[in-house]
Formats: sequence, structure tokens, C-alpha cells
Amino acid sequence: MKKQLEKITPRDQDFSQWYTDVVLNAKLVEYGPVKGTIIFRPYGYAIWENIQKILDMEFKKIGVENVYFPLLIPESLFNKEKDHVEGFAPEMATVTQVGDKVLEEKLFIRPTSEVLMANFWQKEIKSYRDLPLLYNQWNNVMRWEKTTRPFLRTSEFLWQEGHTIHNSPEQAKKLTLKILEIYSNFATNVLMIPVINGQKTEHEKFAGAQETYTIESLMHDGQALQAGTSHYFGNNFTKVYDIKFQNNEGKWEYAYTTSWGVSTRLIGAIIMSHSDDLGLVLPSQISPIQVQIINVQNTDQVESASEQLAKELNQYRVGIDRSDKTFGFKISEAEIKGIPIRIEVGPRDLANNQVMISRRDTRQKMAVPIDEVQTVVKNMIQEYDQNIYQIALQNREQRTSHAETLAEYQNLLDENQGFVLVPFCGDIACEEDVKKKTSTNSRCIPFDVEQTKGKCFNCQKDSELRVYFARAY
Amino acid sequence: MKKQLEKITPRDQDFSQWYTDVVLNAKLVEYGPVKGTIIFRPYGYAIWENIQKILDMEFKKIGVENVYFPLLIPESLFNKEKDHVEGFAPEMATVTQVGDKVLEEKLFIRPTSEVLMANFWQKEIKSYRDLPLLYNQWNNVMRWEKTTRPFLRTSEFLWQEGHTIHNSPEQAKKLTLKILEIYSNFATNVLMIPVINGQKTEHEKFAGAQETYTIESLMHDGQALQAGTSHYFGNNFTKVYDIKFQNNEGKWEYAYTTSWGVSTRLIGAIIMSHSDDLGLVLPSQISPIQVQIINVQNTDQVESASEQLAKELNQYRVGIDRSDKTFGFKISEAEIKGIPIRIEVGPRDLANNQVMISRRDTRQKMAVPIDEVQTVVKNMIQEYDQNIYQIALQNREQRTSHAETLAEYQNLLDENQGFVLVPFCGDIACEEDVKKKTSTNSRCIPFDVEQTKGKCFNCQKDSELRVYFARAY
Repeated sequence: MKKQLEKITPRDQDFSQWYTDVVLNAKLVEYGPVKGTIIFRPYGYAIWENIQKILDMEFKKIGVENVYFPLLIPESLFNKEKDHVEGFAPEMATVTQVGDKVLEEKLFIRPTSEVLMANFWQKEIKSYRDLPLLYNQWNNVMRWEKTTRPFLRTSEFLWQEGHTIHNSPEQAKKLTLKILEIYSNFATNVLMIPVINGQKTEHEKFAGAQETYTIESLMHDGQALQAGTSHYFGNNFTKVYDIKFQNNEGKWEYAYTTSWGVSTRLIGAIIMSHSDDLGLVLPSQISPIQVQIINVQNTDQVESASEQLAKELNQYRVGIDRSDKTFGFKISEAEIKGIPIRIEVGPRDLANNQVMISRRDTRQKMAVPIDEVQTVVKNMIQEYDQNIYQIALQNREQRTSHAETLAEYQNLLDENQGFVLVPFCGDIACEEDVKKKTSTNSRCIPFDVEQTKGKCFNCQKDSELRVYFARAY
Repeated sequence: MKKQLEKITPRDQDFSQWYTDVVLNAKLVEYGPVKGTIIFRPYGYAIWENIQKILDMEFKKIGVENVYFPLLIPESLFNKEKDHVEGFAPEMATVTQVGDKVLEEKLFIRPTSEVLMANFWQKEIKSYRDLPLLYNQWNNVMRWEKTTRPFLRTSEFLWQEGHTIHNSPEQAKKLTLKILEIYSNFATNVLMIPVINGQKTEHEKFAGAQETYTIESLMHDGQALQAGTSHYFGNNFTKVYDIKFQNNEGKWEYAYTTSWGVSTRLIGAIIMSHSDDLGLVLPSQISPIQVQIINVQNTDQVESASEQLAKELNQYRVGIDRSDKTFGFKISEAEIKGIPIRIEVGPRDLANNQVMISRRDTRQKMAVPIDEVQTVVKNMIQEYDQNIYQIALQNREQRTSHAETLAEYQNLLDENQGFVLVPFCGDIACEEDVKKKTSTNSRCIPFDVEQTKGKCFNCQKDSELRVYFARAY
């Protein structure tokens, strides 16, 4: 048991090393042969599959359809939208040859697929009757990053990218916000991560977007993490790619588009929100195993009791550890893997018609009569999820404050504060200045904070916004 | 109605054009901006999702775990396995730069991931206790093709690639054949496509494999299509990549690996096995819509009857066409889409407490009392699937023959025969010769045909094999 635990650096000693230790020891990933890439091992990929399943269902409920667009984008097609090019050009992996043959035109590995959608829609859309189209794809994209970390920032990552096209700005904006709501509910109720819903500033909005909306979370160490974004493009893309439809009066109009995405970054957010010195602590809905039954001894009696329990708990994903590892090792492994509920089945307890049940978060263990296991597990899982949410929320609340001046803001950063609400002018140049001075930038203009007038915390000009700034992943 | 139907070239007039017309008119795909790539539209992708769901479940049943390995393979890593390099080098899309910066080492977009698995396993595996590992990934791969056709041969395609590693040749071979069985059952019982299970000849086996197994199907036009393959590598890869494990006697041994895959090609096979002049004919289990309810008129009474029916049929994927298109257009659209069962709900029939139900394959239509719809649909779907299987089987049987000499074989090809069983020596050079003379090659050494001695149909040397040759996609 000790042997395993020693591998994980204590979280408060070195957060960054702790994160790496958890990721590797829980066998979520291994580093790939190309710098900045990761291999998703079965346990890491199973988490992603559970995320996919739930989100995919939510998207389909509002009429989103899955598609698959190609990996490669011709240079000439990509270069049409100037902001987009500027945002992505330095990060793009470029195919220049096939076998020994040099290609006539460079092909970019998609960093995102707006231009491919635009190119398709240009031919596809003729009438207002063709709209809206609500597309989504689950795929891999590449953005070459200098500094990489598993899940948080990798050259290649997995995500979903939604793309929609509409016949009115109102409908497109409504969809943008509907998606933000889906993301926000998913983070809160499935991942048990509290998030702040808001809008990105001009400086931080997506390359080519008119408006970017975001859900922002705060990690255990006080750094913010953008967990999902939803972009309203207006007709920026449709003008550049000439996507028009005939409205119900027969006139030609440019259409309105959106895009939105969450990625395998969410797995990083889960780890840094909930996990501890013993390893992962996984929200029950995305945990590959929700209830781990551990055979204390491998006798026929224990085995048949475990199998019976697994049957009774078949509404959950149940694992049985019947390996010949030591008891301590089995416990330690279940803890590193972050399995919410653990049931220990041993001969002595069985003689008393009971088993031991414990929670991964509190590590409280209790004897439970066998015929009460179902009820106890049901309640315990709910309490477990609520508790890990509350801990994350408390951390965020303790680390959320406000400042009126840059000096105050810098002091708060030094004190390791997380979100700091400041009056902000909203100017791109001013935010760039803050970034230079503090290496931080804005996270969002929050929806649930009153936007009052004041003096910008940096440039002192009149400001109309209250914005969260923070160090961020 | 006519307007739509005119778009599809009759199948017997020009099979190739018919295929393209069906693919495009059923809105399965559109061509991508890079030559040889396709865009999966919602309807095409939904078929793939249904294929994934069923196969993924079958893999998981035998203990396969999903993973995700990176897209890019460093040149030095790839070049270790010589046969593999020779097989894939000319087709590999190569990343040479990121932004403006030229990379120090070329990176290949994976054509398949054997070498990535090998590289990972080299570090991962120490003891026989670590084995077997049964991995699978659903991803995109690239093989640059000169001549491309939607689904059948595209530069980028979607597939699953399974990779397993074992501590004995027996276990690895058993897995290879178990997978072939899963593929064969899936083709037969889900896609309703009859297949021949067999082994590939030396000439046709996979680059780097010791043995390749295959399921071979015959399309409506008499050309064969390889629908899935499963490879046994022995320790070819583990020797090159130095993957050893300590056996239960403490000695170091090379491990044994397999790989296996099916791709979006299967969608091409479905189309060319079952579809007709009116469009797609989809096997019920992978059809995105299994029962299409068509409102003959859009009255409240019709709508509520349709909704009631949809509820009663909720074990199926049911669509309701309540659009304001003409009745004929709705019918035509359901037919192009290949929806197995169609229910027409109109006021006159409702007055008689009945609806009209028809099958896509036979186009037989019958009046069915409303309270018998469930039973009728259930039986009809089974009969439908059996019937499309029988039609495909009949086609194959009519087009399967045997030859003793090359001249006979060539005559049969001229007569548009499909599979031709011939006595064959098995030599690579001899098969190369047949390929040059006839532009065809072997499909497989079938399991269910007695392997008797004879004289090779081409070189006249003693032969011990009976092999199917055919034109193929």
C-alpha cells in the first residue's frame, strides 16, 4: 500500500508535480512519441467516453446532428478569414508532401473546422427553409503548443466542435446561449464543478467571433480554467465565404453562424477540482467504475456474495477486484482510481451478514447489513457528488475577491487569490497592458454580477464592466 | 416524385454512376475540399454511429478496452519495421512544418497504428501477468489513394483498429480468429451481407503480418469487397520493437501481437449489396430511421394518430414526416433513404381504423388495422432483413464458380462471374503474374472449402490450395 502512495507528491507541496503524479499513477495517459502528445490509456479514455455519452445525448435532445468533416484544410481555403488565420497560423501542423512527392498546395491539420463548414454550407444553403443546420463532430484537432501538459494543453486533443447556421441573428445568439447552458449544467451537475457563466472580453474572444461565451472554473490551486466556450460569429464567416440564403421575401441575405466546444481538458479540470493526495476523486456519473467491490479473501463464499451484490447494484458500473493482490494494495488502487464507492466483502463480515462500505471523498467506512446495501449506496453516491461539489465551491468562494486598482489586484494575486472582480474599460490595448504587467488576463464578464459604472482598474478611464481576472491554465 | 427519381442512374445501366448517384442523393456524403476526402453528412454519419455502437459492444464483451493513440508517427519510429514501411510509405501524408518552422523530423499521419502500440508496449510490458492487453480505437487514418470513391477508397477514412498483445502464439491466434468471427457475424446478422471467411494468400496478407484473415463479400455487380481483416503478427513486431515479457519461469520471451479493423468501407458494402434504382435499402439494425411514419395530410387527427403510433413503436427508431412536401415527394424521400418500413397515416384510412404499411425492399403495401401495427411491424422487419440477405446471397451464389485453368478463369471474368475457386500454388510470384495478366488477385483461402491437391491454375505446378480469385473493389 505504501509503495503506491509514495508515488504521488502531496498536493500542497507541489501542485504541478502532484497533478502529473496523479495522471500517470492513475494510468490515465502516457506521453506519446511526438512532443506534446498523449496516449489515452483505457482508464483515461473510458472517462472521455462517459463525458461523450452524456453530452452527446444533450446535444441530440435540442436537434443537433453528428457529422464528420475531413482532417485536412487547404491553405487557400483557410487563409480567407484574416482573424482566424492570425489566431491559428503559428500553431498549425502542415502537410507538405505525400510519400516522396511534394504537394502543390500546403494542407493544414485542422485546428478547428469553421472554414470547412463554411465551405460546405456555401454550396448547401439556398433558402431559409434549409436553415437552421445544427452540426456537431467528435474528433481530433491539432494546435502546436510550446508548453504542454496532459489534458490541459496538448498538441493534439480530442473534443467536440459544434457548428450551426441560422437565418437570423436572434436565433443564432439564442443557440449560442442554449449551448452555454448545456455546458454549464453539465459541469455543475455531472462533473460537480462549479462554473461562472459569462462573456469573453474583446481581447479574449475567439479568432473571428463577434461574441464568445464561456464557463470558467477555479482549480484547487487557485488558477482558473476555461472549461467550455460558445461563439457567435454573426455573419463574419458567411460574408467571407459568401454564404447566402433567400429569405421568405425572396431576398438574399447572409446567414449567421455559431461554434462551440469542450475538449479532453475537462478531464484536467476534474482532476484539479476534486482529487487529493491519494489520487483521483471522480464524479460518479463519469467514473468508469462507480462501485468497486473488493474481495477481502478469494473464497467461494466471498466470491458468490460479491457477485450477488454486483447483480443487485446493476444500475451502476460495478467492478469486482478478485485479484491475488494484497488487501492494502487493492484499497490503494481503488483510491488512486478515484472510484466513488468501495465495498469490502470479507468472511468475518459475511458471518455477521454485513459488508464494509466506504466513500472515496471522506474515506468514512461503515458496516452495512447486506440487505441495506442498495439503499445505502444510492444515498451515498448522491452525498458523495454533493460533497465534492461543495468542496470545490468553497475553494472558489474563498479565493474569489474584488479589487479597484491594479496594485490591489496584484496584491491579491500574490496572496494566491483566484477570481478577482475588477472595474474594467474593456479596451483591447488596456487588457494587453494588464497581461504584460501581471501575466494574467480576463476570464469573463460574468452574467450574475451587476455591471456597474466605475474607473478601470488599470487605465483609470471610465468603465462600464465588472470583469473577473485571474491566473489561468 | 419523378423529379427525385430521375437523379439516380439505373443500376444495370451504369453501376458505378448508380453508386455515386445513390450516395449523393441519399445525402450520405459530399466531397471534401481535399481530393479523395469526403464529408459525412448527418445521415451518413448516423449509419456509422449505429455500426460503431453494435461492434463496440461486441468488442467490450470479450474484454477489449478502448484507447486513443496520437495521430502523428515520427519517421524514425515508423521506419523500423521494413515490410510495414514498404507497404505504406508511398501513401503517407507527411507533416514537415508547423507554422513557418520546419520540423527536425518528419511526422507521418498514421495510416494505421501498429508502431505506436509497439512503442508503448515496449515500455509497458514486463511480466506475463501484464498480458494479454486487448486495445481498440475508433479514429481517422490516412492513406493517399490515386483513385478514390466515397466510402470504398478515400484518402482519409474512419475505422476501428484493434491491437492486442499476448504471451503465447496460441492465445494470439485464437484472438485473431475470434475477431474474425465477430466481424463475420456482424456482416451476416446485422448488415445482412453474406461473407466468406478465409485466410489471405502470401501475396495479399497485410504488410508485416504472418497471417491475415478476412471476410469477403460480393457486391451486386459481381465484384468482391474485403469487408474486414484480422492479422496475426506472431512476434514480427515485438522483435523489431524489442517487446519482451518475463514468463512464469522467469525467462524473457518476445510477445505476440494481432491487429484487426473494419472501416467506413462497410457503408459502401451495404449500398452495393442491397440498394436499388430507387436509392438505399438499409439493413434495419443500422438504419438511422427504422420506421418512417408519413402524414398523408397535416390534420390534427392525423398528427395525433401518428404520434400515438410512434409511441407504440418506441422500441424502434421512428421518424414522422409532417413536412408540407407533397405526398409523392415524401414517399420518394423515404425510399431514397432506404428506410425499411413506411407507415402512411391518412384521414380516409383512419376512418376505417387502419393505416397503410409498406416495405422498402418489395414495395408491397398493405392495409393494417391500427391495433395490429406493432405485431405487423415486428414481423415485417424480420422478413425484410431476411429477404435482403437472401437476395444478396442468391446474387453471390449465381456468381460463384470454379475454374481449373487461367483461360477458364478469364472466360468466367468475361462473363462477369464473381468468386472463382481455383487450384493455386500460393506463390507470391505466381499471384503477381495472375495480377498482371488479369488485373485481379486472390480474395481468400476459404475455411469452408476442402483444400485439395491439384495443379495451379496459372503456373501448373503442384498446388495444395483452393482459392477464390475475383475482381475486387
